[in-house]
Amino acid sequence: MSDLNLRPARVTRQIGVEPLRVSGTHYRTIWIAESGTVRAIDQSRLPFELATIDLETLADAAQAIKTMAVRGAPLIGATAAYGMALAARSNPSDAHLAEAARTLQATRPTAINLLWALTRMRAVLAEVQPKERVDVAFREAAAICDADVEQCRLIGVHGLELIRGLAKTAGRRLNILTHCNAGWLACVDWGTALAPVYMAHDAGIPVHIWVDETRPRNQGAALTAFELGAHGVPHTVIADNLGGHLMQRGQVDLVIVGSDRTTAGADVCNKVGTYLKALAARDNGVPFYAALPASTIDWSLQVGSAVPIEERSPDEVTHITGRSSSGRIETVRLVPEGSTALNLAFDVTPARLVTGLITERGICSASRAGLQRLYPELRAAQ
Amino acid sequence: MSDLNLRPARVTRQIGVEPLRVSGTHYRTIWIAESGTVRAIDQSRLPFELATIDLETLADAAQAIKTMAVRGAPLIGATAAYGMALAARSNPSDAHLAEAARTLQATRPTAINLLWALTRMRAVLAEVQPKERVDVAFREAAAICDADVEQCRLIGVHGLELIRGLAKTAGRRLNILTHCNAGWLACVDWGTALAPVYMAHDAGIPVHIWVDETRPRNQGAALTAFELGAHGVPHTVIADNLGGHLMQRGQVDLVIVGSDRTTAGADVCNKVGTYLKALAARDNGVPFYAALPASTIDWSLQVGSAVPIEERSPDEVTHITGRSSSGRIETVRLVPEGSTALNLAFDVTPARLVTGLITERGICSASRAGLQRLYPELRAAQ
Repeated sequence: MSDLNLRPARVTRQIGVEPLRVSGTHYRTIWIAESGTVRAIDQSRLPFELATIDLETLADAAQAIKTMAVRGAPLIGATAAYGMALAARSNPSDAHLAEAARTLQATRPTAINLLWALTRMRAVLAEVQPKERVDVAFREAAAICDADVEQCRLIGVHGLELIRGLAKTAGRRLNILTHCNAGWLACVDWGTALAPVYMAHDAGIPVHIWVDETRPRNQGAALTAFELGAHGVPHTVIADNLGGHLMQRGQVDLVIVGSDRTTAGADVCNKVGTYLKALAARDNGVPFYAALPASTIDWSLQVGSAVPIEERSPDEVTHITGRSSSGRIETVRLVPEGSTALNLAFDVTPARLVTGLITERGICSASRAGLQRLYPELRAAQ
Repeated sequence: MSDLNLRPARVTRQIGVEPLRVSGTHYRTIWIAESGTVRAIDQSRLPFELATIDLETLADAAQAIKTMAVRGAPLIGATAAYGMALAARSNPSDAHLAEAARTLQATRPTAINLLWALTRMRAVLAEVQPKERVDVAFREAAAICDADVEQCRLIGVHGLELIRGLAKTAGRRLNILTHCNAGWLACVDWGTALAPVYMAHDAGIPVHIWVDETRPRNQGAALTAFELGAHGVPHTVIADNLGGHLMQRGQVDLVIVGSDRTTAGADVCNKVGTYLKALAARDNGVPFYAALPASTIDWSLQVGSAVPIEERSPDEVTHITGRSSSGRIETVRLVPEGSTALNLAFDVTPARLVTGLITERGICSASRAGLQRLYPELRAAQ
């Protein structure tokens, strides 16, 4: 672990809570190593190994996004920004940067943060001469990362008040269900859905998290459980099938998920299975929130059915990777030879099932009006 | 495989379709071997190995149910019946049989077929002298098995007409989603939810099955995919998270599931996650049916919230077993050390979400009135 760049949590200090910890050390998900290399936590090796991956080229960045060594909508955007900087380092010409943006955009279709980051990088780079572009690009990528951290912190601040209110009403430990991983591993730091959880825990509000394992990639079992465990937040991993039953039994007080793309009409596209939890929350009167920064909002789309849904390899369904009793990381096949699988990675939760959106500017109703109230200037830009 | 008792499909012949096949051979899930041993397919080794397990004693039968070497509500009942016969073979006294019934009843709490079979066996055995009980018990267990096969066949006949009607309306291949395994492996033969599917396929109606993998035990990925593949029914394995999205996209025409216990008010207790699919079906106007024989109805309960829900080992969530690339069967850990899991095996789908029940007596509405119309004599017995 000596190659990990240890940086104290700049922003967490501001609100007086302990930084997020992994074995007592605070990490971001992506940073610049002393050598000048872009370095990221290799999430494909969690939860059993905390290793890093160095991104030296545009191709490295694209590959890391595509293979999900880095994943999570905000982190995909941040990595794409660094991918543009790496592309500029190799060749800062307009043509090459346009090609680089196309390459990065093609890695994953659903998370709108990817397009958002690329658009922002291209706009900034278009303003300066090629010879200045490497420096400008690395500065802008760093600014995107810092802004993401601050946005997530603010999501945490607003979500904390929501949790505080529900905990006060409940008068006991609050059970919060989350799907997939929308924690600090999905962002640069803090997380979206989990930022309020960390702040509540650190503020002494008793919370317990139901962690959907989130098949097929098991981001819940592998990443959310890892994060929460490292931070000391009480949690229990459950099969994706169980959340509805727990809600029927009154054992879920709140659902918070992230979002990979939220439409202007507040439909929430998120990891596949989110919609099922939203239906169960509605059926049982459980508040259901999505937490997201502005970069996740796609103002060009009104309804979620227009969001492109990524189809990934069937191997992610037919096979699974874990650690054998001998300590080896093994991939095993789960289905009979001859049976195939379909692996669509996201679904869309209609706004009507969403209680509210937790953003860096506050909490709003899941509606066009709610979003427009918080982001009047972005609406105007459309 | 030479130790498998190959019996031609007695009942399937009657409707003129091919028997269910595994590599061209027709199996029941449980039978009496030539040696007089009770022999069953060891479902814990599927889909990678088709092996059998011999049940020589009451303890063997109880263990096979508990470890899910045999599983599925009807098959649990059939195995428990043979467990009573094995108990009688060792000691046919009233006291021993009462103890045997308690032992078997304690194996799994949710499937009501278990209690139903034990009650039926005890009633029959109480009528005869101890010295006659071994023969009577084996005959009665065989009768329970034969009746189950016939009930499942009739469920298939009634469900076939439902599928035929929907296929005619659709005018294309019908996409049917099922959860867990309610096929012939869950019963003695045919299956409940899958009996109509097999009959439709054999009748030339084009069907394609979405197979929920059904975490944590993966009965869908392991057993339903195996069954359907062996019979040549087109199917695709999906993560449990995907069904809702497929329904939103109009890619599911019908949901059929089994049931482990159906209340007198027609609430359907079935494998955990069923409720989530029922919610999605309702939200998207997809017909949702449960297929079950009378032995699965608990006339003593009105609402599903009173059904005891089995809690199984967290290891079934934290670990998974599959076949490695070298062909070894390996169990791997999926969650970080220090993270725990909760493993509740069933949930309850309220009758309001169920379009209808497919029984051996026909299809009825999911309501007390619907069930009473089909089973007037059972209602009267309460």
